[in-house]
Amino acid sequence: MYVYGKNVANEILKNRKKIKKAFLYKDFSDNKIIESLKCQNVSTKFLSKLELDKMVDGNHQGIIIEIEDYQYSDIEELLVKEDPLLVILDHLEDPHNFGAIIRTCEAAGVDGIIIPKNRSVDVNSTVMRTSVGALDNVKVAQVTNLKNTINYLKNKGFWIVGTDMDGTNYQKIDYKGKIAIVTGSEGFGMSRIVKEACDFIATIPMKGSINSLNASVATALVVYEAVNQRANEL
Amino acid sequence: MYVYGKNVANEILKNRKKIKKAFLYKDFSDNKIIESLKCQNVSTKFLSKLELDKMVDGNHQGIIIEIEDYQYSDIEELLVKEDPLLVILDHLEDPHNFGAIIRTCEAAGVDGIIIPKNRSVDVNSTVMRTSVGALDNVKVAQVTNLKNTINYLKNKGFWIVGTDMDGTNYQKIDYKGKIAIVTGSEGFGMSRIVKEACDFIATIPMKGSINSLNASVATALVVYEAVNQRANEL
Repeated sequence: MYVYGKNVANEILKNRKKIKKAFLYKDFSDNKIIESLKCQNVSTKFLSKLELDKMVDGNHQGIIIEIEDYQYSDIEELLVKEDPLLVILDHLEDPHNFGAIIRTCEAAGVDGIIIPKNRSVDVNSTVMRTSVGALDNVKVAQVTNLKNTINYLKNKGFWIVGTDMDGTNYQKIDYKGKIAIVTGSEGFGMSRIVKEACDFIATIPMKGSINSLNASVATALVVYEAVNQRANEL
Repeated sequence: MYVYGKNVANEILKNRKKIKKAFLYKDFSDNKIIESLKCQNVSTKFLSKLELDKMVDGNHQGIIIEIEDYQYSDIEELLVKEDPLLVILDHLEDPHNFGAIIRTCEAAGVDGIIIPKNRSVDVNSTVMRTSVGALDNVKVAQVTNLKNTINYLKNKGFWIVGTDMDGTNYQKIDYKGKIAIVTGSEGFGMSRIVKEACDFIATIPMKGSINSLNASVATALVVYEAVNQRANEL
């Protein structure tokens, strides 16, 4: 996977993540980055602006870094604990939201995140950047068919809690046991087929006239309600 | 205030916000936007790419729109209700976070948001875009000195609740009465002087090793805890 830009380069170098290769503009002049690449023995290639421009879409600021692709987990790896708490993202699109959700899940102790393979944000360089290291501690599984995955989880004894309007107040739902919380996409919410597969719909009460919370905010409110309930059980 | 880009233009035209003037690239070819500008009788000027580039920093996609500057509220306007719930943002930097917080405050029925004048995100075009209309229903006041404002609020009978680590579990704090919730900046949290002025520090329990929630997520969790407690009182 290619990531790029000076901020990202600095962060990757600071965290000493495994770098496969660095591609620099021939007149790249950020000495701090050049020094760090040398210190960490990174194989570096100097290219023309045109060659760099061809490699990525976006403002690379003269530096592109090749890192290992993100390694997704198997869904089975998310089910090792007795009563897992999972988060399913139904075609989320915004990498900043995905990054914020990964941080929330890490902080809340969620056992894993499930995303679909198609028409969804995946773990790209923006997600890596916005999740600020939390990705190292949260498992993410990528599945081909969310509906099938939800049915599989139901057969394993999971309760599926969707987040949407016109459902039950999110604080009145029982989140104990095996739980998967489903958040929909930013623009359209959950797809019909996924919504129908939910056992409960959790609704966050809203007083305003806009009635749409940011997807990462809505997910955090339901996840923390679940985590707080589960903590009080012990 | 100049805002730019086709998406922003479309949104402003759709919501029929007051447009002072539109500046278009001389070969601008998005007919839908051109039609809407005509329909709404917007005074339009055609410019060269160089002239447009000089007006804004960022990818204007051939369209720059001049709208009225955001009208901040007086702090007194935030205090009209008997027991207001306010949110104070201590030098927040990211306009996406600010936009998400405005949406949360609108949905939760917060009575106003206070931001400092310097070294803080203000209501710019990105904030307008990410808050998706919620700005029309939430008052934002801009103050020169947060510490003085906090003291002023304390004299008015407010309890000041900061959000930070190593404080009281956020669910164990009493949010009834006149309350102002303070969130710090993304990188550094609250400033020392603001933190010292808080009556309580609300802490969101975290299990992970990263221990930092997105600023808009942390704010939402505390705001909704407050709103839920206050609703149960009635």
